[in-house]
Amino acid sequence: MLGDAYVDASLAAVTDFSRDLQQYVTQYCWGDIWNRPGLSLRERSLLNLAMLTALNRGHEFKAHVRGALNNGVTKDEIKEVLMQTAFYCGGPAALESFRLAAEVFDA
Amino acid sequence: MLGDAYVDASLAAVTDFSRDLQQYVTQYCWGDIWNRPGLSLRERSLLNLAMLTALNRGHEFKAHVRGALNNGVTKDEIKEVLMQTAFYCGGPAALESFRLAAEVFDA
Amino acid sequence: MLGDAYVDASLAAVTDFSRDLQQYVTQYCWGDIWNRPGLSLRERSLLNLAMLTALNRGHEFKAHVRGALNNGVTKDEIKEVLMQTAFYCGGPAALESFRLAAEVFDA
Amino acid sequence: MLGDAYVDASLAAVTDFSRDLQQYVTQYCWGDIWNRPGLSLRERSLLNLAMLTALNRGHEFKAHVRGALNNGVTKDEIKEVLMQTAFYCGGPAALESFRLAAEVFDA
Amino acid sequence: MLGDAYVDASLAAVTDFSRDLQQYVTQYCWGDIWNRPGLSLRERSLLNLAMLTALNRGHEFKAHVRGALNNGVTKDEIKEVLMQTAFYCGGPAALESFRLAAEVFDA
Amino acid sequence: MLGDAYVDASLAAVTDFSRDLQQYVTQYCWGDIWNRPGLSLRERSLLNLAMLTALNRGHEFKAHVRGALNNGVTKDEIKEVLMQTAFYCGGPAALESFRLAAEVFDA
Repeated sequence: MLGDAYVDASLAAVTDFSRDLQQYVTQYCWGDIWNRPGLSLRERSLLNLAMLTALNRGHEFKAHVRGALNNGVTKDEIKEVLMQTAFYCGGPAALESFRLAAEVFDA
Repeated sequence: MLGDAYVDASLAAVTDFSRDLQQYVTQYCWGDIWNRPGLSLRERSLLNLAMLTALNRGHEFKAHVRGALNNGVTKDEIKEVLMQTAFYCGGPAALESFRLAAEVFDA
Repeated sequence: MLGDAYVDASLAAVTDFSRDLQQYVTQYCWGDIWNRPGLSLRERSLLNLAMLTALNRGHEFKAHVRGALNNGVTKDEIKEVLMQTAFYCGGPAALESFRLAAEVFDA
Repeated sequence: MLGDAYVDASLAAVTDFSRDLQQYVTQYCWGDIWNRPGLSLRERSLLNLAMLTALNRGHEFKAHVRGALNNGVTKDEIKEVLMQTAFYCGGPAALESFRLAAEVFDA
Repeated sequence: MLGDAYVDASLAAVTDFSRDLQQYVTQYCWGDIWNRPGLSLRERSLLNLAMLTALNRGHEFKAHVRGALNNGVTKDEIKEVLMQTAFYCGGPAALESFRLAAEVFDA
Repeated sequence: MLGDAYVDASLAAVTDFSRDLQQYVTQYCWGDIWNRPGLSLRERSLLNLAMLTALNRGHEFKAHVRGALNNGVTKDEIKEVLMQTAFYCGGPAALESFRLAAEVFDA
């Protein structure tokens, strides 16, 4: 979902300190939430872009911009999500996410 | 989008104090964001449920549960959005939104 | 600043449980922050309306709407502060504060 | 942990809509987090009072005030946690939690 | 308001991806909010420093420190706003904004 | 509490601009909150790790990871606090704090 590069990097980065969290994330988030049939992966990606903007979590936001592209979300649709955050989360939140998304596109 | 009852109530409630904000919301949010073609009304409703949970804005969340039903989002899909918020926004945020959504369904 | 009614109610409500906090608030907030000469009481009231909207703290927001009126802020200026929050904090935050301010005006 | 009354009320309140979330909470939060040996139940209760104040989630905060009392946290220790939130989360957050905790004590 | 350097940088940075947001910001924020007569530019700058501290949006905060200086806010008044955030938004929020403001002053 | 290096750095960094805040922090936070007898320094450190994760204040979080180690909190206990934030504050908040804590351990 977030792409092989992300998964490889995550696995490579596992340490004694982070192992339990990685397991928690793998089991509950990937195993439970993303595997649920009620919404498509594409829709779940859209939701995450909006939520991570609202939550002000830029590092995860960038990972999920890459994930969204992998799940078939277009650059224009990412723009639409962020335009919607401009009204609901406020201008500074949207400006930050536009900047971070552009960094992902440029990379 | 949010249903006639909501719109009627909003218009009836406009005062000298709130007129400018209502105009701002009408023009920029309804006129600009929701009218954009890049995402469906249904998808925009899904995004709002997630964002308003993250933003902890219960009053607007309830209005947008009603709006989501009007836009063709099913009760099961609302559940899916909120299950996803459980991981990303945390358990207390999801529990609150489940409770508020149930209040809308019961009304 | 917040008016005699507020102060009387606060003092009357002090218990063994809340005494230390009341003392902390009295000494550090009222004694230290609000007594500083660098900004006027009116300006500090404007700041608080904006901050408490951003922080999503409705109960304190309402107390500070009353305080702002006591400090010479007009109803129209309160509207202006909240219009500005609409862009920066997002529409739902502004809508909530408009509603809460209207409750204070109506009381 | 949160007391029989809470658990009974939670179970009684389970519906088709909320079942998946209840299961998620039961398995991951109660089963996984609270069962971990690294911190005592009392310490985990202290953490929750602080976190729920920071997160502005009053409904869950009140449930965890009851839970904290069940886990052996004293009223004075609850006061200490909230005094600490006054500096880190800000005055309005602490004032709100003092008020909510007092409601639990009075009930 | 934010100075020629900021505007030039913003315009130069507009891309197909960010054009709609830039237009939204220009029209609604600069055109609508900042042009409203009810508060002075100086007062609106004070509000933004407080709000952006509360919202934890450091990048925009720094731009608005520059904007505040352009609008006639003194360094001492910026200090006063941030002292007030220390009580309302909490110590960590104020410490962060002091650090970011100092970076702007040093540049 | 946060170690000599932190205190030295803080004192060295005091300027005309930041002096009042440093005094406020020293008097109210260190003098008042951390000196209170109701909770141990170790417990107060645990609370801060949880609160600063919830508040999304990474810079202060890292300082308090160092402080927690100084106050006798073990690396495993820090892990436990962060595991608990994963459920209550959400996955992205916990992932960020794990990453920041690891940076402190590696330094």
